Amino acid sequence: MLVTDLINVRYLSGFTGSAGALLVYADQRPALLATDGRYRTQAARQAPDLPAAIERAGASHLVGQAAAAGVGRLGFEAHVVTVDGFDTLAAALCAADGAVAGAELVRASGAVEALREAKDAGEVALLRLACEAADAALGALVERGGLRPGRTEREVARDLEALLLDHGADGASFETIVAAGPNSAIPHHRPTEALLTAGDFVKIDFGALVAGYHSDMTRTFVLGRPADWQQEIYQVVAAAQRAGREALRPGAALRDVDAAARGVIADAGYGKTFGHGLGHGVGLRIHEAPGINATADGTLLAGAVVTVEPGVYLADRGGVRIEDTLVVGGDSPAAAGTHPELLTRFPKELTTL
Amino acid sequence: MLVTDLINVRYLSGFTGSAGALLVYADQRPALLATDGRYRTQAARQAPDLPAAIERAGASHLVGQAAAAGVGRLGFEAHVVTVDGFDTLAAALCAADGAVAGAELVRASGAVEALREAKDAGEVALLRLACEAADAALGALVERGGLRPGRTEREVARDLEALLLDHGADGASFETIVAAGPNSAIPHHRPTEALLTAGDFVKIDFGALVAGYHSDMTRTFVLGRPADWQQEIYQVVAAAQRAGREALRPGAALRDVDAAARGVIADAGYGKTFGHGLGHGVGLRIHEAPGINATADGTLLAGAVVTVEPGVYLADRGGVRIEDTLVVGGDSPAAAGTHPELLTRFPKELTTL
Repeated sequence: MLVTDLINVRYLSGFTGSAGALLVYADQRPALLATDGRYRTQAARQAPDLPAAIERAGASHLVGQAAAAGVGRLGFEAHVVTVDGFDTLAAALCAADGAVAGAELVRASGAVEALREAKDAGEVALLRLACEAADAALGALVERGGLRPGRTEREVARDLEALLLDHGADGASFETIVAAGPNSAIPHHRPTEALLTAGDFVKIDFGALVAGYHSDMTRTFVLGRPADWQQEIYQVVAAAQRAGREALRPGAALRDVDAAARGVIADAGYGKTFGHGLGHGVGLRIHEAPGINATADGTLLAGAVVTVEPGVYLADRGGVRIEDTLVVGGDSPAAAGTHPELLTRFPKELTTL
Repeated sequence: MLVTDLINVRYLSGFTGSAGALLVYADQRPALLATDGRYRTQAARQAPDLPAAIERAGASHLVGQAAAAGVGRLGFEAHVVTVDGFDTLAAALCAADGAVAGAELVRASGAVEALREAKDAGEVALLRLACEAADAALGALVERGGLRPGRTEREVARDLEALLLDHGADGASFETIVAAGPNSAIPHHRPTEALLTAGDFVKIDFGALVAGYHSDMTRTFVLGRPADWQQEIYQVVAAAQRAGREALRPGAALRDVDAAARGVIADAGYGKTFGHGLGHGVGLRIHEAPGINATADGTLLAGAVVTVEPGVYLADRGGVRIEDTLVVGGDSPAAAGTHPELLTRFPKELTTL
């Protein structure tokens, strides 16, 4: 199989350069990496066991290598390779010396992504570090009074991103969301010059990046004493989020997990305000398999690392989302009943600042 | 034509959401935007003249609309659409009510990118702002003594990125390169904990992002009194860079522009150390057409905004790159002899810090 998605190349080989492709055999033959001259040293350091071909057209080169090695069916990532890119690969296959008759490119969309879904111990360790960095950064922000009336969303976002670096992150795992007052009712709001105001919600959705792995956490605060409506929707979301977390078991149907949380919100009469899925996998990408939503097929794997992030959003007033990142419990009989491991440990009680 | 590259959608419509597609007719019929429910309000605000369909499968919806409108040949971006994505579009075309017999998807790779190559006055104004923000940030960094022995590459990069925000940028236009001492000989070095050291080069390659437009500038400093070898390669690169800038005229062959700078470096005996192209277009992407290098076809367009960035890199000792962003002069007969407009105005003399 020819792997050209760079995250998949990284996952399989350890190589993190911005140009590269990987050829993996179904039998015991060693995999082969291709990259360009800029990454000669880096490839040798990051993937010392893999022979690396230094070629500008790396993917085509690997197609030629596979053909010359007698491969008749070569998998490719049809969800990544463009229509123009496919033509280039097909031409390389045709032009290869020694290709077997009828050699062909066959679709292997999502094959590596499926491997990535259940994380190994090393990956969980990095995700734990990323979540710890985010916890520490948000703690430091609150500690120093960073969430107070009169500051802008953008100032808060910038502070928090700087604190991520101070607490060991390589960077933010996505563009930080800070949404004050009515803006908190917008599920994905980009920080503006809007001011934090006494009595309002402040919703913060952010994460840390550590060694390529992403964390993802949302907390919603009230600046001052919460009004009744704020208390009410906060408690509804908190109860829904708890129900979602408790539904995270190996083998659980993804849509049942979604329904566990969604039902709490619907029962409270806010079902129409929760318009997005309950969660998603997190790893080398901030969004990856599995999606946890009402139309998802499939079940949770032991070792999957996922978010649980229900929300209630009241247009022009404010909204609440509470989101954690968790590891789905083990699949050994002994661990089958294990609760998921909570990676984002910042408190979730309604906090009055 | 169906446009699915999000930067191309933005260029043509003004819409900046993370999901969307655009259908553009060859005749006077109005274009049609499609995006999902998250972006209903944003689409109406950013593209008020365009009807927007709110559909999860926006591109397929637009294919159906085109087919129903009697389109027989529908262009698509074959350099962007994946093999799997193409199947989805083809299925939408087959399933469309009222499609004309023999309706087909035809390749239109790079059609919008070609339009983007020559910038209009509004785009140049934004690029000018981005370059001014970068000039101001680097000026402030030097002014406050940010480049001094004992600091790490990473500290300097972080300071400079914060200063970009202070000076009006929305962010950095790419990951800032700060390369000290021997690291300056690596063309694209990521900042590390390496220390800035007296007597060494410090090479800084960075840019500002303003309203979607990118700036790109490299400056190389010496921390203290330059040695003879440092003076020598600095002057060679400066002369090559000047020759490259002076070769920027509408209609000039791209490879001649590259050769104008490369020849200076080769004549000085450093030809083998300059292993990358001379420059590239800059705009809504940090790298876009035209590429200015030894194998490029085509000519410079009036209004193209490009970098000129020769370098000399001496392994294990240090390297120099000097890079500006410039606008290629006008194409009216009166302006044909106009010098390119220099957008990055930070001084280029060898500066002793």
